[in-house]
Amino acid sequence: MTRALNFNAGPAALPEEVLLQAQKQLLNFNDTGMSVMELSHRSKDYEEVHNGAQAQLRNLLQISNEYEILFIQGGASLQFSMVPMNLLTEGKVGSYVLTGSWSEKALKEAKKVGATSILASTKEENYKSIPQLNLDNLEANAAYLHVTSNNTIYGTQWQSYPDVSVPLIADMSSDILSKSLNINQFGLIYAGAQKNLGPSGVTVVIVKKDLLHTTVDHLPTMLNYQTYSQNNSLYNTPPTFAIYLLKLTLDWVESQGGISAIEQKNNEKAKILYGVIDESNGFYSGHANQNSRSNMNVTFTLPNEESTKEFLTLAKENGFVGLNGHRSVGGCRASIYNAVPVEHVIQLAEFMKKYRQKG
Amino acid sequence: MTRALNFNAGPAALPEEVLLQAQKQLLNFNDTGMSVMELSHRSKDYEEVHNGAQAQLRNLLQISNEYEILFIQGGASLQFSMVPMNLLTEGKVGSYVLTGSWSEKALKEAKKVGATSILASTKEENYKSIPQLNLDNLEANAAYLHVTSNNTIYGTQWQSYPDVSVPLIADMSSDILSKSLNINQFGLIYAGAQKNLGPSGVTVVIVKKDLLHTTVDHLPTMLNYQTYSQNNSLYNTPPTFAIYLLKLTLDWVESQGGISAIEQKNNEKAKILYGVIDESNGFYSGHANQNSRSNMNVTFTLPNEESTKEFLTLAKENGFVGLNGHRSVGGCRASIYNAVPVEHVIQLAEFMKKYRQKG
Repeated sequence: MTRALNFNAGPAALPEEVLLQAQKQLLNFNDTGMSVMELSHRSKDYEEVHNGAQAQLRNLLQISNEYEILFIQGGASLQFSMVPMNLLTEGKVGSYVLTGSWSEKALKEAKKVGATSILASTKEENYKSIPQLNLDNLEANAAYLHVTSNNTIYGTQWQSYPDVSVPLIADMSSDILSKSLNINQFGLIYAGAQKNLGPSGVTVVIVKKDLLHTTVDHLPTMLNYQTYSQNNSLYNTPPTFAIYLLKLTLDWVESQGGISAIEQKNNEKAKILYGVIDESNGFYSGHANQNSRSNMNVTFTLPNEESTKEFLTLAKENGFVGLNGHRSVGGCRASIYNAVPVEHVIQLAEFMKKYRQKG
Repeated sequence: MTRALNFNAGPAALPEEVLLQAQKQLLNFNDTGMSVMELSHRSKDYEEVHNGAQAQLRNLLQISNEYEILFIQGGASLQFSMVPMNLLTEGKVGSYVLTGSWSEKALKEAKKVGATSILASTKEENYKSIPQLNLDNLEANAAYLHVTSNNTIYGTQWQSYPDVSVPLIADMSSDILSKSLNINQFGLIYAGAQKNLGPSGVTVVIVKKDLLHTTVDHLPTMLNYQTYSQNNSLYNTPPTFAIYLLKLTLDWVESQGGISAIEQKNNEKAKILYGVIDESNGFYSGHANQNSRSNMNVTFTLPNEESTKEFLTLAKENGFVGLNGHRSVGGCRASIYNAVPVEHVIQLAEFMKKYRQKG
């Protein structure tokens, strides 16, 4: 059986090497005679996995000791609440940039916690681009500025980040580890693992230590970042197998040459697909403005609803998986995260060209 | 490599058949050319897993349609908060029975949410038993009565449940699926999967539908049970691989003959170990009173600290894993969840007898 041409938006393709390694060790990790899933989370063998994942992430993204790396459950959706619960203190305002459905959801949860504002939004233009920011409009009492680094549904991505005086918070669920990053620009980064980091079930939070000094003992223990930072994310049983797969995926990134090599490959993959769109004389129409295009999710439509539908049907018959746009916007979407091989992207590009010629 | 003699308290031993099946399908589930982890959580293939796990649990525990089955992240520790956040409404009191550290933690989180009371506790006697309840003491305005069905640290277990006029809530993390159960006695049951249900990373909540009618829109979306019940636990990406392993584990229980066959085997396993303790003339001393003994966690000490230590060291050298008592109480603990084979329990019993004869 060959590997599927997997363009799923998340959960998404994982590196074949990672799956093969997990398969090999599934009943016997490190000669323990046990699966990683069967290890105590307080055992040395598991500890090496847990701390190893943190160390490898630190290494790949050059994260200094000023930052903690936390493993939390609940996905980015729980972070929408945890961020304001921990950081949006009395008298402060949480400032949000709206670039799609996920930022809207983040804002909605923050509103339940405290005062919020919208610094910029491209909702009016159906989220085709990342807005220019006027930082003069940022409130003096802003607790933080929240952005969504990559918008899976609309296919847009921040190309660079603003230099702000308050902590910059980023939901990087769909593009963390896809390109080099200056962590020091951020107060807190969170990312559900199921795109570039591993399987669903674990969320990585990278947070500057000095943001964790507020007293938030009134919070539920499991919603307090300090519970995780003070217990090395081992206050209760973590999702051990998901963290193991995270570690294997991080090790794989290193084996590929690290972030810079991955970034180059991601640029190459995106260029192939956007090339087909741009050279199609409008047959394929990209949703995102060129200056805001995502290297992770390429969103496009065909001349009409009918041909979009036919294209998707034919693509499916030809073995391409996950090309349907998000149910909220329709159209087509090719998600080309780190683990999607260039060869699969070339096959999709060829298929798109052939379909256009036929059409 | 033979399988380890795994007596871990959780994460714990999984059925070998489950791991072999997961291994076989790891790169190719259902001829998709993808791992379960790589499937979209909105795909038909995944849906079958998700709904199949619910259906199998319904079948095994004979759960009627008056109950919802939810899959939530965050472990039982997050349920300590979600239960009162959703059910402990203004003017009501959450009533707790304290039978160990986990009930204490559940109470601690409830106190952050609203009014609480303690109906009974065996803390004074170091949690050696499950208390007798005087239900006359239950407040008229009790929102619920909360119990911990099995106490992993102390090795005690409820032998039967009280018939109460308010919803009975049970943390069943460590004994769900180990014996037959009348679900209709309960308002809500929750259980982290990592003992009898599968790997860590998913928590099963079985809740009576009529408890979900209160308006709790002010809650963070991810902490509102209605988010899960209204979206079949697919509001955001669930921990798909953990749920897949849950399904395989449930199917395995059925293949073993269902709950009654499992219960019989669990009784047999517990009898073997308690037999060694009881026939040891006090050499091995069980922590739990006989009428409160757990069939899941057998806790005991040796005549003195030194011999306990030597026993644990020798046991480890002989391949027994996870026999150390919880770090908060010391001593020895053999966790004999569903997936621990009778043969491994017999080996441990033989080892205990031999050590005693030698000592």
